[in-house]
Amino acid sequence: MQTWLLTDPDSDFSIHNLPYGIFSTKGTKPRAGIALGDLVLDLPALSRLGLFPGIDVQVFRQPVLNPFIEQGIHTRVREAVQSIFRVENRLGWEPLLPTFSHRRADVMLHLPLHIGDYTDFYASEYHATRVGKRFRPDNPLMPNWKSLPVAYHGRAGSVVVSGTDFPRPKGQILQNGKPAYLPTESLDYELEVAAVIGRNTQPGTTVPAEEAEACIFGFVLLNDWSARDIQRWEYQPLGPFLGKNFCTSISPWIVPLDALDPFRVAEPEKEILPYLKTPGNRQFDIRLEVRLNDTVTARTNLADLYWNFSQMVVHHTSNGCNLSVGDLLASGTVSGPDDEGCLLERTEPVLLSDGSSRTYLLDGDRVTLSGFGRKGDIRVGFGEVTGRILPAHDIPLHDNP
Amino acid sequence: MQTWLLTDPDSDFSIHNLPYGIFSTKGTKPRAGIALGDLVLDLPALSRLGLFPGIDVQVFRQPVLNPFIEQGIHTRVREAVQSIFRVENRLGWEPLLPTFSHRRADVMLHLPLHIGDYTDFYASEYHATRVGKRFRPDNPLMPNWKSLPVAYHGRAGSVVVSGTDFPRPKGQILQNGKPAYLPTESLDYELEVAAVIGRNTQPGTTVPAEEAEACIFGFVLLNDWSARDIQRWEYQPLGPFLGKNFCTSISPWIVPLDALDPFRVAEPEKEILPYLKTPGNRQFDIRLEVRLNDTVTARTNLADLYWNFSQMVVHHTSNGCNLSVGDLLASGTVSGPDDEGCLLERTEPVLLSDGSSRTYLLDGDRVTLSGFGRKGDIRVGFGEVTGRILPAHDIPLHDNP
Repeated sequence: MQTWLLTDPDSDFSIHNLPYGIFSTKGTKPRAGIALGDLVLDLPALSRLGLFPGIDVQVFRQPVLNPFIEQGIHTRVREAVQSIFRVENRLGWEPLLPTFSHRRADVMLHLPLHIGDYTDFYASEYHATRVGKRFRPDNPLMPNWKSLPVAYHGRAGSVVVSGTDFPRPKGQILQNGKPAYLPTESLDYELEVAAVIGRNTQPGTTVPAEEAEACIFGFVLLNDWSARDIQRWEYQPLGPFLGKNFCTSISPWIVPLDALDPFRVAEPEKEILPYLKTPGNRQFDIRLEVRLNDTVTARTNLADLYWNFSQMVVHHTSNGCNLSVGDLLASGTVSGPDDEGCLLERTEPVLLSDGSSRTYLLDGDRVTLSGFGRKGDIRVGFGEVTGRILPAHDIPLHDNP
Repeated sequence: MQTWLLTDPDSDFSIHNLPYGIFSTKGTKPRAGIALGDLVLDLPALSRLGLFPGIDVQVFRQPVLNPFIEQGIHTRVREAVQSIFRVENRLGWEPLLPTFSHRRADVMLHLPLHIGDYTDFYASEYHATRVGKRFRPDNPLMPNWKSLPVAYHGRAGSVVVSGTDFPRPKGQILQNGKPAYLPTESLDYELEVAAVIGRNTQPGTTVPAEEAEACIFGFVLLNDWSARDIQRWEYQPLGPFLGKNFCTSISPWIVPLDALDPFRVAEPEKEILPYLKTPGNRQFDIRLEVRLNDTVTARTNLADLYWNFSQMVVHHTSNGCNLSVGDLLASGTVSGPDDEGCLLERTEPVLLSDGSSRTYLLDGDRVTLSGFGRKGDIRVGFGEVTGRILPAHDIPLHDNP
């Protein structure tokens, strides 16, 4: 697509992407925007300029994207925004650019969704196998693992937007075989991608495989911060709880499903029950990366997941469980054949560029996840999700700000 | 307290209770109300009559109670409503009764909360021991069980109000050692009580034991319907997921914490870490009952929990996890020394009054939970939460109503 707006060819936010977010500028209210190159397009402003006839501007003035997503108008909005930047429309739109855009560096980004429920899967065989080996060397994968996409419910209320730092969590930890209440000594990151649900399903109904993708609005990066010592002591028999729910970070820009079309790839056929079979190319060739401070600690690919996102949707609704717009379905740690998407999988400490090493995260450490697809000239990326570890502290409730 | 309104002494909804709910009458919008005897008091109507000076009537006109709870005005509202029914105020208020009340039989009750997150604990030693015995006869309780209140995140989006029937869920189940996608054959109920959070806590802060109860607004009954065969196959290693998230039912009336004051009881001292020690009487002598069709299948007492609700709040926030108004913290199945709060615990089928027996629930079965406290003349009850099992069906997404 020929456009009159020059964007860096290495920008995640090309004209092929157009991800949605919630932004504000100094003294203004959070509202819907689209990232394009170094700009943020102001959707209420574009609406006032008449770009979206028949769409009430109020849907862009909400502090979250849920109402916009729920209206199912995203394709119209996306096509209208792309049309602005067609070469033949330059004359009409370029002079208006300052009235409907902001420099990305000048805006503040907010959590773009009201997240009703956050589900975390465990869909990478590399991850599940390496983690399993630490507990059961001879039998790392549970018997159910290749039969269904294992998942659990995470905490929706502690999902935060990129840039939110948080204190090292404390919790009950086994120390010399005895439980004690202490700051975690094994704070970890998890490199994940999450689908944002774009459609409400009714309780008691199931989503067939061929319709599963229609329930997905788009994707974000997700860092499922984990305290392994808390998790290890608490998780039997009901799964992870306080080892995970202190903070979960997502990237601010939701990349629409359509933008990932160029990166679809086939996957090896699996022997699974018919209800889980999803014909077509349902995996996405997206390169993912973890940076710990200045060091890249992992490069993996989303297409290496064993279970694809359509299968997650199908399985999630296979018992009649309803999904709602804004729900997150996260992949679980995306590891690869050679790279580990979290520190728990490693058998050796990771070496950093400053000469230090990490078994787990230290106070002050910053972890940044990023990801993009590239095919020919087309690049579509997620931007990043970043967060930093503050020292553990004691702020009891009565001292809350 | 002497009142001019005669209520049945066996009513759950005495003047000592005054639970909050969301109701509507034919052709009107859902709004806040209080149950009293056979009546529902219409809070917007009472507001218009001037009973709540300084409180904006809009807070009572919302479709959920969260804004009301968040404003922290419940004590003022409760005291004002009680004052109406004092003998000395009869002359002024009795003539107005028809303008601010409805017969309970005439109103429709709605889910009273927006539930941001629903956490399910596992706080009954009787339950955990009996369930554990089925898997590990010699070592039923996990090593962590008496050290911390074990919990997991349930699904907030599939919590429904009493009276919502639902189809028997399907799911992946082991049949002769092989997984198959089938309707569950071991559908169960779980008798639970859930605390409704009444205060937002900040991420990164902890709630000390002595302030934990101040975070609780009130309580509801909760039936954590469970499909044991789905659960058994899926739950390793990340806990229950589709075996639980198809439906969770709560009672429509939220009994405020204050109303349970008369039923406080002491509990045996436990050897636990200091952060979990909650001085004072934090258990409640509430008699609970399960009815399967016409047969009472269990009578237990809330005070038999090993972990009290204050300890659940303290532990939940011990890692800095934030709580929000409307969150549910459920007890897990409340079993007793002699009675089982769910069918899974039983070693023999339960006999029903019609001569039939149940290992698990059949289509058409109705399960009703109820509970109340009584001390002298004071009775405070929860009403009930009821639901019925419809046959399994196939409604794929495209046929959704």
